[in-house]
Amino acid sequence: MRKIEHIGIAVSDLEKSNSLFAKLLGKEHFKTEKVDGEKVATSFFQVGETKIELLQATDESSPIAKYLERKSEGVHHIAFDVEDITAEVERLKGEGFEILNENPKLGADNKLVVFLHPRSTNGVLIELCQEIS
Amino acid sequence: MRKIEHIGIAVSDLEKSNSLFAKLLGKEHFKTEKVDGEKVATSFFQVGETKIELLQATDESSPIAKYLERKSEGVHHIAFDVEDITAEVERLKGEGFEILNENPKLGADNKLVVFLHPRSTNGVLIELCQEIS
Repeated sequence: MRKIEHIGIAVSDLEKSNSLFAKLLGKEHFKTEKVDGEKVATSFFQVGETKIELLQATDESSPIAKYLERKSEGVHHIAFDVEDITAEVERLKGEGFEILNENPKLGADNKLVVFLHPRSTNGVLIELCQEIS
Repeated sequence: MRKIEHIGIAVSDLEKSNSLFAKLLGKEHFKTEKVDGEKVATSFFQVGETKIELLQATDESSPIAKYLERKSEGVHHIAFDVEDITAEVERLKGEGFEILNENPKLGADNKLVVFLHPRSTNGVLIELCQEIS
């Protein structure tokens, strides 16, 4: 857990939220990316060493669409940058955390990602991510 | 908006959550603090340049108690470090954001703080904070 890599925020209209966050942060997003595996369109803003990742569902089967059905727009997950995701998953399993996908999958922004179930982490969906070198 | 100063997480049992986050982050919290104005007990963990702030209500009239009644444990707010909080509030007012307290108030960790209403920020409660020098 070297730093907060990004904070993921679920939004219903990416274009509208890009404009909103540009006003809030005083700067534009620096990239957009579609992640087919998760059925999301994303955009990224940089604030210090951390990114703000806005997430819009591209299909009703997307985890973000399901999230917005149950809850409302807001913070969806917090992602921690890790050096060795496999070792970190082993460590966290040993500590009793519930791992959602033990095999790291390809996430946005050239990362391998693993999620921890929020019921084992005080209601916070946690993502571990390791930059693919 | 120079960096993510901290992420505030609402918890119902600070001691239990201190132990949980110590396991998650692989390190202990570095301080605790009671903020009488907000009726909260807090603890802080450092991850890179950002802190994780756990917040437990110390009274049923606390904003955190009310939050836990309506929602559940989880991310409560995101706090951005700003150099000049008064200038930033003026800028954000001009951009149409809804300011919850125009006069900065004393927050935890030696900060002046201002909150933006989540209905103007995609459901995310935003805190601006300026270190008191």
